[in-house]
Amino acid sequence: MKKEALAYLKPFREKIIHAFEELEGEESFARTPWTYRSGEGGGEMAVLRGKVFEKAAVNFSEVSGEVFPGSDGKGPFYATGVSLITHMANPHAPTVHMNLRYIETPEKSWLAGGYDLTPMGFFYDEDTAHFLKTAEEALAPFGLYEDFHQQAKEYFYLPHRKKERGIGGVFFDHYNTGQPDEDLKVWKAVGESFLPAIIPLYQRRIDQDFSEEERAMQLRLRGHYAEFNLHYDRGTKFGFLSGGNPEAILCSLPPVATW
Amino acid sequence: MKKEALAYLKPFREKIIHAFEELEGEESFARTPWTYRSGEGGGEMAVLRGKVFEKAAVNFSEVSGEVFPGSDGKGPFYATGVSLITHMANPHAPTVHMNLRYIETPEKSWLAGGYDLTPMGFFYDEDTAHFLKTAEEALAPFGLYEDFHQQAKEYFYLPHRKKERGIGGVFFDHYNTGQPDEDLKVWKAVGESFLPAIIPLYQRRIDQDFSEEERAMQLRLRGHYAEFNLHYDRGTKFGFLSGGNPEAILCSLPPVATW
Repeated sequence: MKKEALAYLKPFREKIIHAFEELEGEESFARTPWTYRSGEGGGEMAVLRGKVFEKAAVNFSEVSGEVFPGSDGKGPFYATGVSLITHMANPHAPTVHMNLRYIETPEKSWLAGGYDLTPMGFFYDEDTAHFLKTAEEALAPFGLYEDFHQQAKEYFYLPHRKKERGIGGVFFDHYNTGQPDEDLKVWKAVGESFLPAIIPLYQRRIDQDFSEEERAMQLRLRGHYAEFNLHYDRGTKFGFLSGGNPEAILCSLPPVATW
Repeated sequence: MKKEALAYLKPFREKIIHAFEELEGEESFARTPWTYRSGEGGGEMAVLRGKVFEKAAVNFSEVSGEVFPGSDGKGPFYATGVSLITHMANPHAPTVHMNLRYIETPEKSWLAGGYDLTPMGFFYDEDTAHFLKTAEEALAPFGLYEDFHQQAKEYFYLPHRKKERGIGGVFFDHYNTGQPDEDLKVWKAVGESFLPAIIPLYQRRIDQDFSEEERAMQLRLRGHYAEFNLHYDRGTKFGFLSGGNPEAILCSLPPVATW
């Protein structure tokens, strides 16, 4: 499965980088490779700081080690994935997060991933509907949308603020039905539906007018986003525990946030 | 002990608020009371957003409940404390954090607290020396400085960045030697030495010139500070788990941070 996962992830990531650069216009992603500890793998950050994308990161990583970090397993592990976040200049354009991961331990292997949308104060019904409908249609052939949507609802939640992080999306973890080919199809269906889910929203929103108050609201909501990523996010925990590159792990944090 | 702890905390807090307002000049602290869940206690936030203190919070809380949050105990608990943070407008002036707490569970009760200094890129030897020497002199009568200083070194540490949060200070937790009167003296000695440790630094630094690059460095280092407070800080964890007021718990976060 490792081979198939890697073969999908790399061109998938390039397609997203290309689509974002097209939307941005002039600026392009800055790529920074990094190696993991003593050289057991590594990754590449790609960060865009532009006029449309105030900050976007589309990262690839592939690491292995002797001791699985956290409580999901023990002993040697292998993990690879693409992880993505956007923080848009325009408050009308929501933040989006997406990731696809494949993980192996001696006892088991699994696929994981998903994407979710976080409006920065503007909840447009047509945007929410389009985003979720795209995910729903992608997962319809597998009958998995309700399940994955519910998992997103539970995962992307800030208990201390008693609110969901945004409008949700789809999320799955430890996914392994025993049918690797079918599982990969599900994983890829999530990946393939990501750009169709988000690009139309950005095309609609990135040129809308906004006020200073609306910018201030966006920065406060980015603070809530940072709270989630630093306090609850499993990727951050895994990254810190595994001794990963802090700059790569924290690429997801907003360019500016206020409290 | 509860009575003695409370009797110390309230005027202690007012003294700090007064000292900070004097340094600030015109602006004063905005006070916001809050109640805990169904009314088992509560607290008061006091937040100053001024020209010298870009943001300072000096909070008091007193809460009790049926189930102790976290792993330090179980069953009913009582917790009271003063917690303080500053984020200075001038990057030459370091961030300081201080807290004093008293906690009771059915099995045990303890005192906790400390203070630590986080320079925003400018490490002035004379400032570090004054800050630590003041703590050292306060704890000399008890022979506890080395111990508490070492605990601060270990606690105020960002493993993912492999660096200390700042230059440290003093920190102690679960402090109960079985001699309540002596323990209270130690606790109060930490409290009494706080203003003498920090005020002279602020008097020296708040009017120094700084550049845009230095401001940018301050905002990046504030990002690291937010990482500590959201990912590692015991107070944040306790606060979230106990269902405390998120605004009060997160008062410590910087007014603006960048990543």
